[in-house]
Order: sequence, then C-alpha cells, then structure tokens
Amino acid sequence: MSETLAEAVAEITAAVDRRFDALLSVPDDPRASLYRAMRHATIGGGKRLRPLLTVATADLFKVDRDCAVLVGTAIEAIHVYSLIHDDLPAMDDDDLRRGKPTVHKAFDEATAILAGDCLHALAFEILADPKTHPDPFVRSELVLDLARASGPSGMAGGQMMDLEAERSRFDLPTVTRLQQMKTGALICAAVEAGAILGRVPPEGRLHLRGYARDIGLAFQIADDLLDAEGDEALAGKKLRKDGEAGKETFLSLLGVDRAREQCRMLVDQAIDHLRSYGREAEVLRAVARYVVERDR
Amino acid sequence: MSETLAEAVAEITAAVDRRFDALLSVPDDPRASLYRAMRHATIGGGKRLRPLLTVATADLFKVDRDCAVLVGTAIEAIHVYSLIHDDLPAMDDDDLRRGKPTVHKAFDEATAILAGDCLHALAFEILADPKTHPDPFVRSELVLDLARASGPSGMAGGQMMDLEAERSRFDLPTVTRLQQMKTGALICAAVEAGAILGRVPPEGRLHLRGYARDIGLAFQIADDLLDAEGDEALAGKKLRKDGEAGKETFLSLLGVDRAREQCRMLVDQAIDHLRSYGREAEVLRAVARYVVERDR
Repeated sequence: MSETLAEAVAEITAAVDRRFDALLSVPDDPRASLYRAMRHATIGGGKRLRPLLTVATADLFKVDRDCAVLVGTAIEAIHVYSLIHDDLPAMDDDDLRRGKPTVHKAFDEATAILAGDCLHALAFEILADPKTHPDPFVRSELVLDLARASGPSGMAGGQMMDLEAERSRFDLPTVTRLQQMKTGALICAAVEAGAILGRVPPEGRLHLRGYARDIGLAFQIADDLLDAEGDEALAGKKLRKDGEAGKETFLSLLGVDRAREQCRMLVDQAIDHLRSYGREAEVLRAVARYVVERDR
Repeated sequence: MSETLAEAVAEITAAVDRRFDALLSVPDDPRASLYRAMRHATIGGGKRLRPLLTVATADLFKVDRDCAVLVGTAIEAIHVYSLIHDDLPAMDDDDLRRGKPTVHKAFDEATAILAGDCLHALAFEILADPKTHPDPFVRSELVLDLARASGPSGMAGGQMMDLEAERSRFDLPTVTRLQQMKTGALICAAVEAGAILGRVPPEGRLHLRGYARDIGLAFQIADDLLDAEGDEALAGKKLRKDGEAGKETFLSLLGVDRAREQCRMLVDQAIDHLRSYGREAEVLRAVARYVVERDR
C-alpha cells in the first residue's frame, strides 16, 4: 500500500470508528445486546473501502470533511448490514468475519438479523438528517443513490443471484452482472455520493462512475484470486468456499492468468477515467492500484 | 366496520396492491424467486392500516391521492419487511401469516431474509424518488420520519425488547415502551407522513401525533385481547404464543377487564385529539373505533 493510501486509510478508519462509537452508545435497557452487536460488527474492522471512496471523491470538490465522513459511515453501515445478513446460517453460514466471530456466533441469530436491520435503517437516518447536510436536495439524492444500490436491483439482488449460482451454471456475462450488483453497485454508490456532495450534476459524473465500475469489478476478480490463493489467517474469513459450492467465478471461467490480466486492465482503465483530475485524485488512483496488489 | 371505513379500506387495499404489483414485476433472471417472495408477502393481504392512516391524514390537507398512496405503500413495505423477518425461525418462528404460509415456508430462509432487506430498501427508494413528490424537503423529511420509526429506537428496537421479554419479567411501563416502539412508532410515522405531505409544520402535528400514539397503544391492547380470546382461522396466524412463551403483556399485567377499559379510554382520547377537524376526519375516527371492535 502506498504512503498516500496508508495515510488516507488510517485517517478514515479512525474517523469512521469514532462516528460509529458516537452513533451506537449502548442504552441501559433491554436493547443493550442489540447495540453491542452493532458495535461488534461496525467498530474496528474492515478496510473501509467505501467511506474512503466517498471521502476521496468528495475531496476532489473540496467538500467539508466531516460531512463526507458521515455520509461514508452511512454507506459503511449498509455494507456491514449486508455482511451480517450474508454470514447467517441460512445464507453463506460463516463463523468468521474480519478476524472476529460473525455476529450470529458472538450473539445469536435473532440479534444478528435485527442488528442488520437496524444498521440498514440507521444509514438512511444519517443520510436524511439535516445535521448531515443542510440541503434537502442533496440529502434526498443521497438516499435515492443508496437505496437503489442496496435493493433488489443492486446489492441484495446480487446476493440472491449469488445464492442461485450454487444451483445453476452461470456464464461470464451473468457472473459479471452478479458481481456488478452484489459488490459493484455499492462501490459505485460510494463514489457517486462523493460527487453528489460535490454538487456534480449527473452528466458530469460519467468518468467517476466509469472509475467506480472498473475498480468494483477489478476488486471482485482480485477477491476471487485471493479466495483461491490467499491465506485464511490474513483474510480473517473462510476461503475457497465458491469452489466447494460449485459456483462459477471469474477465476473458474477465465483461469488464473486471464483473470489476473483482466484485473490489471480494469485498474489501468479506472485510472484513465481520472485523467481530467490532477494531484487531488491521487488517493483514488492509489485505491485502484491497491486493488491488484492487496494480499487480503 | 362502519360503511365509511369499509369503503376507505377497500379503496386503499386495491390501490396498494396495484402499486406493489407495478413495483415488483418479476424479472426474467435468477432473481425471479426473490421478486415472487416479495409479491407473496405484499400483495393481497393485511388490513393496510398504515397506508390507510397516511392517506386519511393526507386527505385532511387535500394532498394528491396518488402521492399519498405511494408514500403509504412505502410504509407498508417497511411493515411487511418486519413481518417477514419477525416470522423467521430464529425470531418468532411462525408458519402462517395473513392466512398464507410465511415467506420462509413458501420459499426458504435465505430468500425470506433477502426479500425483507429488499422491501426495506425499496421503501426508501420510493420515498426519495422525485416522481413520488417534487419537493426534496418533503422527500427527505419522509425518509427521516420512516428511518427513525423503523430503526433501533423504533420498530426494530421494539422487536429486540420483545425477544428479551421471554427472558425477563417486564413491568407495565416497560411493556408500554416496548409496544410503543414495536408497533406504535410505525403507526405514528404513517400518520406523520400524511401531515408531512400536507406541509403541516412539526408544531402543528401534536394532535395528530397524540391520535396516532393512542390508537397505536389501543391497537396493541386489542391485539393482546384477540390473542387470548380470538379465533386462529379468522386471525390467519398462530395465537396465544405470548402466554406460552411466558411473556408479560398488557393482558397479563392488567387483566381482561382493565385491559378492555384501557383500550376504550385510549380510543376516546384518540378521537378527542381530532376535535379541531370536522367531517374530513371521519375516516380517522372510524379507524379508532374499529380498533376496539375488530375481531381479527
């Protein structure tokens, strides 16, 4: 990881942790374990890729940092809610996430379902709050951006396709669409949120969307490569599950060499989308480069 | 049910069904069963109390009917998502809902979790869409209203308290707070949404909020009475579960007579909150009266 990126990650990680800590103080009532479960899932874990993308994009347009961090935290809340639900026994049945027991393991299934639901609602509460951003037009655009990216045409729809992938043999276009929905949509929404905060009109967001789409796909291909070749202790979660489940992935469809090549090509393409920006886009470029280099 | 109310219910029920039908057309891809599960849960069931409250409140202020129905549909989507998740084996473990198999019975658990998550996102997508309402201030106020009412301080927090109720012995103030969160918050949000659409400023919504709080609580007490004395076939769901689980309810804490009396008192109080309105509030009054009279 480059120095530029390492600094940005350290700053965003600490800022997002602080936000979650403030948002989720444990009440002295029967909901205490619900809040503890949300804290377990949100604080001190993950690469915070999505908030980083929101803040780095917002920085291009000199958006207030606190505001961008808060919006990034809302997007991370959506991401974390999806991890909690995806890890449930009825879904991917995972015991380990970010090196810690999954929420239903550390607490119980009912608490995990509700903790996910609460983080989902909390994300929209943050985005619609006048304290987050004073302009209601910006707030409602952020909500629409996130709701579309996380619903049946985005993240949750992609997870449904992923469950079906165990029962069907998907071809490359279908796997690409699945991944663009399952992880790509929220990564795009994170970048787009930065542009919305920067008051970039939809037609001015095309390059940023292109950047986000390319790194989203590259990220998933890299994930498939790590899943096949990575170290479980480093990854902090169970690996090689797709192969065991008989699912088609970029790797099974392309093979290691073409997958690696495709990933590099997407990263170059992502960086090329940023050509109209100068040094202010260095963090976004570093994120793109990191996607192919990362080891977890 | 009075004629006024029966007419209003028939109209709203049909309108909400039409909306869900249009919003949830089944795609020809691996998400088909996800959409079928959402249709199973949303179309053709329930009393549609929440959309009815939104539309009836919006009518006080001559709000466009289509817009009010769409906002009511979003609130119903939140309600239905919570029913799907509450029925899961890890939660209340119910096989029957609105006289039909629950979603995890008709489909499977993973599909039920995702169908709930998708309806949750869909609700906010509807509320934040400029096609629903042209004013972004109204849209973001609706989102905030619903997100707060459904999150950890509202519906989902109340469901967590309800799960804890099996392990603790709650007193009357705690049971009251539990119910105000679990069902009351969303009923209040439904009424408040009508007032937001009517551009009533927060200080002008006090009586309507009072009305909503009272019928919400009355509704829950009536539910406890029906749970103890009602007919499972009419109710379309399993009854007498609270007693079996050893949970304290209004009924166990107050006894039948005082519970019935309390319910009537709340309904009178709810109707009194509407005294500044004339005939235009007849549907809201009829809803309040229906709460004590209903048999399912």
